Amino acid sequence: MENSFGKLFTITSFGESHGRCVGVTIDGCPSGLALTEQDIQKEVDKRRPQAGIGATKRTEEDRVEILSGTFNGHTTGAPVCLLIWNKDVDSTEYEKMRFLPRPGHADYTAFSKYGGFNDFRGGGRFSGRITATLVMAGAVAKKLLGTVGIEVLAHTIEIGGIKASPKKIDEIRKNVTTNPLRCADPTAAKEMIGLIEKVREVGDSVGGAVEGIALNVPVGLGEPIFDTLDGDLSKAILAIPAVKGVEFGSGFSVAGKIGSENNDSLAIKASKIVTLTNNAGGILGGISNGMPIVLRAAFKPTPSIARSQKTVDLKKMSTVSLEIKGRHDACIVPRAVPVVEAMMAVTICDFALRAGVIPRVIK
Amino acid sequence: MENSFGKLFTITSFGESHGRCVGVTIDGCPSGLALTEQDIQKEVDKRRPQAGIGATKRTEEDRVEILSGTFNGHTTGAPVCLLIWNKDVDSTEYEKMRFLPRPGHADYTAFSKYGGFNDFRGGGRFSGRITATLVMAGAVAKKLLGTVGIEVLAHTIEIGGIKASPKKIDEIRKNVTTNPLRCADPTAAKEMIGLIEKVREVGDSVGGAVEGIALNVPVGLGEPIFDTLDGDLSKAILAIPAVKGVEFGSGFSVAGKIGSENNDSLAIKASKIVTLTNNAGGILGGISNGMPIVLRAAFKPTPSIARSQKTVDLKKMSTVSLEIKGRHDACIVPRAVPVVEAMMAVTICDFALRAGVIPRVIK
Amino acid sequence: MENSFGKLFTITSFGESHGRCVGVTIDGCPSGLALTEQDIQKEVDKRRPQAGIGATKRTEEDRVEILSGTFNGHTTGAPVCLLIWNKDVDSTEYEKMRFLPRPGHADYTAFSKYGGFNDFRGGGRFSGRITATLVMAGAVAKKLLGTVGIEVLAHTIEIGGIKASPKKIDEIRKNVTTNPLRCADPTAAKEMIGLIEKVREVGDSVGGAVEGIALNVPVGLGEPIFDTLDGDLSKAILAIPAVKGVEFGSGFSVAGKIGSENNDSLAIKASKIVTLTNNAGGILGGISNGMPIVLRAAFKPTPSIARSQKTVDLKKMSTVSLEIKGRHDACIVPRAVPVVEAMMAVTICDFALRAGVIPRVIK
Amino acid sequence: MENSFGKLFTITSFGESHGRCVGVTIDGCPSGLALTEQDIQKEVDKRRPQAGIGATKRTEEDRVEILSGTFNGHTTGAPVCLLIWNKDVDSTEYEKMRFLPRPGHADYTAFSKYGGFNDFRGGGRFSGRITATLVMAGAVAKKLLGTVGIEVLAHTIEIGGIKASPKKIDEIRKNVTTNPLRCADPTAAKEMIGLIEKVREVGDSVGGAVEGIALNVPVGLGEPIFDTLDGDLSKAILAIPAVKGVEFGSGFSVAGKIGSENNDSLAIKASKIVTLTNNAGGILGGISNGMPIVLRAAFKPTPSIARSQKTVDLKKMSTVSLEIKGRHDACIVPRAVPVVEAMMAVTICDFALRAGVIPRVIK
Repeated sequence: MENSFGKLFTITSFGESHGRCVGVTIDGCPSGLALTEQDIQKEVDKRRPQAGIGATKRTEEDRVEILSGTFNGHTTGAPVCLLIWNKDVDSTEYEKMRFLPRPGHADYTAFSKYGGFNDFRGGGRFSGRITATLVMAGAVAKKLLGTVGIEVLAHTIEIGGIKASPKKIDEIRKNVTTNPLRCADPTAAKEMIGLIEKVREVGDSVGGAVEGIALNVPVGLGEPIFDTLDGDLSKAILAIPAVKGVEFGSGFSVAGKIGSENNDSLAIKASKIVTLTNNAGGILGGISNGMPIVLRAAFKPTPSIARSQKTVDLKKMSTVSLEIKGRHDACIVPRAVPVVEAMMAVTICDFALRAGVIPRVIK
Repeated sequence: MENSFGKLFTITSFGESHGRCVGVTIDGCPSGLALTEQDIQKEVDKRRPQAGIGATKRTEEDRVEILSGTFNGHTTGAPVCLLIWNKDVDSTEYEKMRFLPRPGHADYTAFSKYGGFNDFRGGGRFSGRITATLVMAGAVAKKLLGTVGIEVLAHTIEIGGIKASPKKIDEIRKNVTTNPLRCADPTAAKEMIGLIEKVREVGDSVGGAVEGIALNVPVGLGEPIFDTLDGDLSKAILAIPAVKGVEFGSGFSVAGKIGSENNDSLAIKASKIVTLTNNAGGILGGISNGMPIVLRAAFKPTPSIARSQKTVDLKKMSTVSLEIKGRHDACIVPRAVPVVEAMMAVTICDFALRAGVIPRVIK
Repeated sequence: MENSFGKLFTITSFGESHGRCVGVTIDGCPSGLALTEQDIQKEVDKRRPQAGIGATKRTEEDRVEILSGTFNGHTTGAPVCLLIWNKDVDSTEYEKMRFLPRPGHADYTAFSKYGGFNDFRGGGRFSGRITATLVMAGAVAKKLLGTVGIEVLAHTIEIGGIKASPKKIDEIRKNVTTNPLRCADPTAAKEMIGLIEKVREVGDSVGGAVEGIALNVPVGLGEPIFDTLDGDLSKAILAIPAVKGVEFGSGFSVAGKIGSENNDSLAIKASKIVTLTNNAGGILGGISNGMPIVLRAAFKPTPSIARSQKTVDLKKMSTVSLEIKGRHDACIVPRAVPVVEAMMAVTICDFALRAGVIPRVIK
Repeated sequence: MENSFGKLFTITSFGESHGRCVGVTIDGCPSGLALTEQDIQKEVDKRRPQAGIGATKRTEEDRVEILSGTFNGHTTGAPVCLLIWNKDVDSTEYEKMRFLPRPGHADYTAFSKYGGFNDFRGGGRFSGRITATLVMAGAVAKKLLGTVGIEVLAHTIEIGGIKASPKKIDEIRKNVTTNPLRCADPTAAKEMIGLIEKVREVGDSVGGAVEGIALNVPVGLGEPIFDTLDGDLSKAILAIPAVKGVEFGSGFSVAGKIGSENNDSLAIKASKIVTLTNNAGGILGGISNGMPIVLRAAFKPTPSIARSQKTVDLKKMSTVSLEIKGRHDACIVPRAVPVVEAMMAVTICDFALRAGVIPRVIK
């Protein structure tokens, strides 16, 4: 079950970048949820390459199909299978590079693990394209969470060292759609676009960071000591290609803090218990505390760059120079924003079902 | 199975801080592994409070007992149950604070989740003491990994903003035992001790960071797309109380990097494929690439501080001031070092079994 | 993960009887296995309705498609998704019976469990048609088992009280293809066909039993105390609709036996340890002992009969008479034979992977 | 997780027949359940050897201890660890027989699987004694089920071909405690006792069958298509040593029936939907239908008999005669009755949690 995630809301991903399709099966989705292909399509569209930010030229006209699990516009309780047929696939470049693992890619590890039988075309299972399966599952999770008022959103907070200044939830919601970077700070966004363009021109790529936020998560989600909310969220986020770190609330900055500044004081607001700060990122002891869940993920620069690189010819076992051709994003961070949202939604949905916050039948 | 971790090498933790015992059951341990109580005791001893760094005064004379799973000094293939009886328990302070959740602790989330039935004494299941169960399991994992030459080690790299300078593996191995901080940089260690002392005097606490390293991990461990090596490692590390972030290789710094500097070039060394740098932290596409696995975890300052804090009386639903008494560490980071080692070992052990790197019978 | 089965070789079924398709995803299939659509098609064809035994007239021209997981004719280590598009679907009768649960069917339990949102057309997820997904997965499992010399076969041993006389393996292999009942005893088969015809004429149905056998299973498969070989086999077999009992070796007859007659004496044959009898059905303590695995499953008569029956109108909550129209098998036992084979193959494959008998890469 | 069972109510068994203890950990038990050692002790006492029916002379004064998971007499939501220390252990006979696998026992399969490292003393993990861990877990499950009105009971229905005549629920409840066989038919019980005594005198053993019944199970438990209620019940029952078959409702007799006699007509009784017969044994499509769950399990005669038997010396690889000494039951069926109850309770409890029938906090 290595391609499955979730205990009660279980998603199983399949498909390859240059195969016939990419798809996902959702098992454990409650019956009675209103669900159409359009609900999923609109989330998938968010990860389309955006104009003006050095994204791949592959025209991904991804059309979502529901293969099973709905009837009369509602989920039935049976597995929901969602699929996108692959189109516009050009595998010629990859055949030439079969034995030339690209630095920073999974080419070498996949070749070794699967004995050379892996579908290497376009990165196969390790392609960013596989994130479409996560986004499809996330779309269903988001709809489910919506039935109990939980909202998940994400935004770009850093590109190549340029950091967005912190914004309020309302501004984030509004601003992410106003620029191709899905960044809530329009000023920083402009700078980021400039950097990406500059990097793209020299055939290079650049990394960044995304913040994910979940609102209205009730107290009590998470199943310690191992199935913690933060533990499963981090595992979910690390399933997204290129992520090299995950942090919650104050995150890595806690290493430099003292207890009296990092502890969040408790208080009562509208007869509800809250904390006055949110250094915990909404999670204490692996369990949600009712405050917004806040996490950040670091994305490495796309390893596919046009510059000459050193690698090993796996057949001849000799060192060679490699120049990667083909269509690649100079910065995948903006396209990763809906994926972070999706994986947060899937994870929280699973815990909401485990805690009984979402019922088995939606009425 | 919320208190279980691992698919083939499965550990199940039980026990409470102020209950009768803390224990762990290991299911799926291959038969034939030489294993004595001393093997486990020596790892458990590493997390004992150290003199001179403001650690709790609770005298934890933790004596490990093997309850099952070994016969004639070897594992049998049956579940290995390991136990430590609790002693020197003083719960009086906790009874008074039953309805006063300590800021930064799991008191409020546990109270809510378990309907007030949770054993709150000493933090119950959310106590740092529970990490003894992780370390016991880790001791068995480390022995198993040793049979195939894999080594796991960890060290303190930051306390309250004071950072250790990078050291070579040999120095790390040697230096961690020379100071109570388990820090490989003796100069930084001295500074850190000074800071902890200062913080302790004012009744406060301080955070830090730990680096974990696994050596000689063969290519091919990890089961993408969800059961990735980094995904499961992060989940494992986040099961350790107080961790707020995990990163691999270059970690969060990748957000500021370009592809040509972050990609690790491949090369051949002693007829083995290696990378010339290790920004990937030994993991590509969720699979080990044969280089050292490197991760870092951020630990928040211990939430138990002597200073007055604001909280809510859960019974009266009113805001109150709280002063925590009792015995607490001013900095838990050094005691977390063997726990990071343990959780890394457990996770890698599980993947080594899944990949067939460790056989089902040790001969 | 209610629609998934298997720990390392995990199959996930999806699709409905009258939906767009039925499909299955296989996760954990080793890479390097030669696999074509024809390999799977030939197993699926075995469950086609046979002429002359009162089977449904629905023309199931089931064409298998591989959607993912193979490349250049071999498995890649990625999930293998297999699909059959549904054709020739006529749902008109079912719409009328929406609130009239058929006795002996899952109509009422599914209606209750899924709050009326279940796809009731043709039985939805509870249709015999769903066994096509099991057979597809079984086809892959059988091919995998073949690489290590393990063979799985099944045959009809009873229909409506008419029992086949015991036959040797060679005869079973040969005879099952010579009659539409997949019965190894040609004389009994004739009688059975007569009975089915008689039953069909009066609009009734009849039950039966199937025996499944696995040959060349090495000693050591099974993971006690819970993941026993017989325990998981029984769970797998009970996933087949209409099964009401499973037994191993001497089965239920052991209730009337004494130890000295039921114990299988051990002996040496061709320097291999064997038992002189096989009352154990090849399993002791939940672990295979190297002898043939032998199980039997009892199938109830198809609940869909043309005779008038009493049921409850779920909307009006009143008792009514029901006459089922449509196309139904008078005896599903012969079509269940390949399904028993499939579920045995899937289960044994999973344990063979867990024991390392099948490697992660097939060369 | 081979020694774990259950998805939300997960039991993990550990310990050996002649080791230090036998124990079980229950993970996922809701908080707030009143639970004392006496609750568990009384179930464990049921499997004590009874006078007058040829049971082992080993004095099992099994004293249950709760090691974790309760506080102030209630479960806390943390894992409940239950333990019995082993006493009165005599392993001398077993040392002699180390390489002489007893026919009908798991000696040979365990030896092979675990490379000779298994604790063979008293059968180790394959001893009937391990069922004490199941009964302890079952005791907690039964208490939990009791909070929602579900009752589980079992009784002996056959010993060596002598069958008990069917009795009503009230009689079963009452009669099982009146004879050492836990048989609801006093006349048959007397005959059975006579047979057991006769068999015991000649150093032999005898098999039998047990029926398990669950009352007041609501409609909707079971998670098809794989996690069916009958599928998981059969897996649970087959974890009990010596079981060779499981059947539900009409069971194996359905092979000889026609549809019109086997289908259970639906009707309304006290404004609840019921079936007029219960051939389905309370399960349709893998889901409970509100009628009593009825299953039967066949137990083989205890393989430990005093008569001379043929086996193989695993060290010398030669055929030898074997005479087993020591203390053994001539018929284990009566002692298996509480174990069947326990495993039914554990399984139903898991499904009740999955369906939300039992809440996460008991109030």
